[in-house]
Amino acid sequence: MAKFQVNILGCGSATPSARHQPSCQVIDFRDKLFMIDCGEGAQSAFRRMGLKFSRLGHIFISHLHGDHVFGLPGLLSTMSLHGVQGTVTIHLFSDGARLLKSWMDYFNRQSTFEIVYDIIEPGERRVIYEDAGLTVETFPLYHRIPCTGFIFREKPKLRHLRGDMIKFYNIPVSALKAVKEGADYITPEGAVIANDRLTTPPDPSVSYAYCSDTMYDPRVVRDITGVDTVYHEATYHSSLLSTAVERGHSTSLQAATVARDAGASRLIIGHFSKRYLQGEQPLLDEAVEVFPSTILANEGLRIDLE
Amino acid sequence: MAKFQVNILGCGSATPSARHQPSCQVIDFRDKLFMIDCGEGAQSAFRRMGLKFSRLGHIFISHLHGDHVFGLPGLLSTMSLHGVQGTVTIHLFSDGARLLKSWMDYFNRQSTFEIVYDIIEPGERRVIYEDAGLTVETFPLYHRIPCTGFIFREKPKLRHLRGDMIKFYNIPVSALKAVKEGADYITPEGAVIANDRLTTPPDPSVSYAYCSDTMYDPRVVRDITGVDTVYHEATYHSSLLSTAVERGHSTSLQAATVARDAGASRLIIGHFSKRYLQGEQPLLDEAVEVFPSTILANEGLRIDLE
Repeated sequence: MAKFQVNILGCGSATPSARHQPSCQVIDFRDKLFMIDCGEGAQSAFRRMGLKFSRLGHIFISHLHGDHVFGLPGLLSTMSLHGVQGTVTIHLFSDGARLLKSWMDYFNRQSTFEIVYDIIEPGERRVIYEDAGLTVETFPLYHRIPCTGFIFREKPKLRHLRGDMIKFYNIPVSALKAVKEGADYITPEGAVIANDRLTTPPDPSVSYAYCSDTMYDPRVVRDITGVDTVYHEATYHSSLLSTAVERGHSTSLQAATVARDAGASRLIIGHFSKRYLQGEQPLLDEAVEVFPSTILANEGLRIDLE
Repeated sequence: MAKFQVNILGCGSATPSARHQPSCQVIDFRDKLFMIDCGEGAQSAFRRMGLKFSRLGHIFISHLHGDHVFGLPGLLSTMSLHGVQGTVTIHLFSDGARLLKSWMDYFNRQSTFEIVYDIIEPGERRVIYEDAGLTVETFPLYHRIPCTGFIFREKPKLRHLRGDMIKFYNIPVSALKAVKEGADYITPEGAVIANDRLTTPPDPSVSYAYCSDTMYDPRVVRDITGVDTVYHEATYHSSLLSTAVERGHSTSLQAATVARDAGASRLIIGHFSKRYLQGEQPLLDEAVEVFPSTILANEGLRIDLE
């Protein structure tokens, strides 16, 4: 099975604490790495999880609060000290590109790789990355400042050939790629063999939505409907609903409601307030009442999305 | 005894590693805290050592390489989240002030305290901090880019009163402060009682020099002569002398030579290359041959300077 994993490098809010690091995740899609947010300490967490700098080509920044960006200068400088080649594309709002570029131009003058800045406009929905097997698209989140979510979607996979039928109809090797992609086969005599006689359906394509930081908003449900695994911030327990609203965050109950209403198959909650010194079990408890397939993010956690 | 300690928060070079954090120290002088350099992760190390943000009023940055500054945005933001009041003065070169200010103006708009920038000129020797008990002065170091060292000097302390003589000469309480400061006492009859009949010498004042990053240079010896405890970088073992010279760093043998020639009583070595995966004992071994009172820096180490 092709690799499609999310690595949790940090799932705390606001500041590093004894329990959690600031926000950072790494998607591993068939050994290409994609970082989402980059709180202070991301480079250290990246190495602790055994990830390779040379495979990291894209970094996606959801918004310009320090706990989501302060790890960038150190990460990029260390990647240069490790001799990373090629380009690293950073997808972020324009203010972030301006601020980061001023530091990198000064502190990382002798970079071994090129930094490319891809500017995201607040509120836009756009495919900001695409390769043969994957797309990444933005959608708006609703925080105190402009904030964007990201959806990682595996492209449709190839259909499975039915070996017996391929043999029966004597399909030549040169035609198999088109058949796997869904084409009917036309024999030299002009007869049409319907694709579904030759193949079985492909494995399902899976998808992952990153929703942090955001307050509860039904528009998020609409934008992520049909996604398999949802990461949604759950900074507070419902007992602090008014604090959540005031600060542009969500409760774990709200996160679970979003996952349920979007028809997700799994929910990961994170971006925990540091007030849950004894652990986030209360947040999990209220979430599973609404959406049973909820798990708590934690540093070092690696989850298969397939 | 009045508190005068150095806390080692990070003593590695270049990047965080499994062994070491980037450069950061905190001087605790009678419960006022002074940070020297601020590599990524400084705020976490600060809290792990049980230090209080509210007592940190001055930060001294030796030079503008990322491993000495990338912890500043996170530290200052977290201090604001903790509600620190008053001012925090950051002493650094002008480029650093410009770059840091642009980030803080954006990411820390609602700071609870004021950041004051004190600009150090490359090469200058200046007292950049002074209070009733302490001075901090700069002196040049010799690195690939402009770099400054810092000397923390306790001011002369008060002389000890000889209780028997104070009673014998019937010295009034109102005169004791001047006597402790070294004044003779003049009786109502006009007789002069020499101070050394009334007091014994004060406890010695101690001093601490921070020398990182720098290559070996006899001018450093001259500038720190007479200092009690010296922290000197020792990035490499002597077997890598040419690498040290090329990169503007020192070997542990050179660090020991500086401490010996400056007449120091103790040397702390740090800023270790990450190549010493098995520990820095080889660096210590060659240093003690030249200067026996050498110790290895390590994260979490707290040393009394008195």
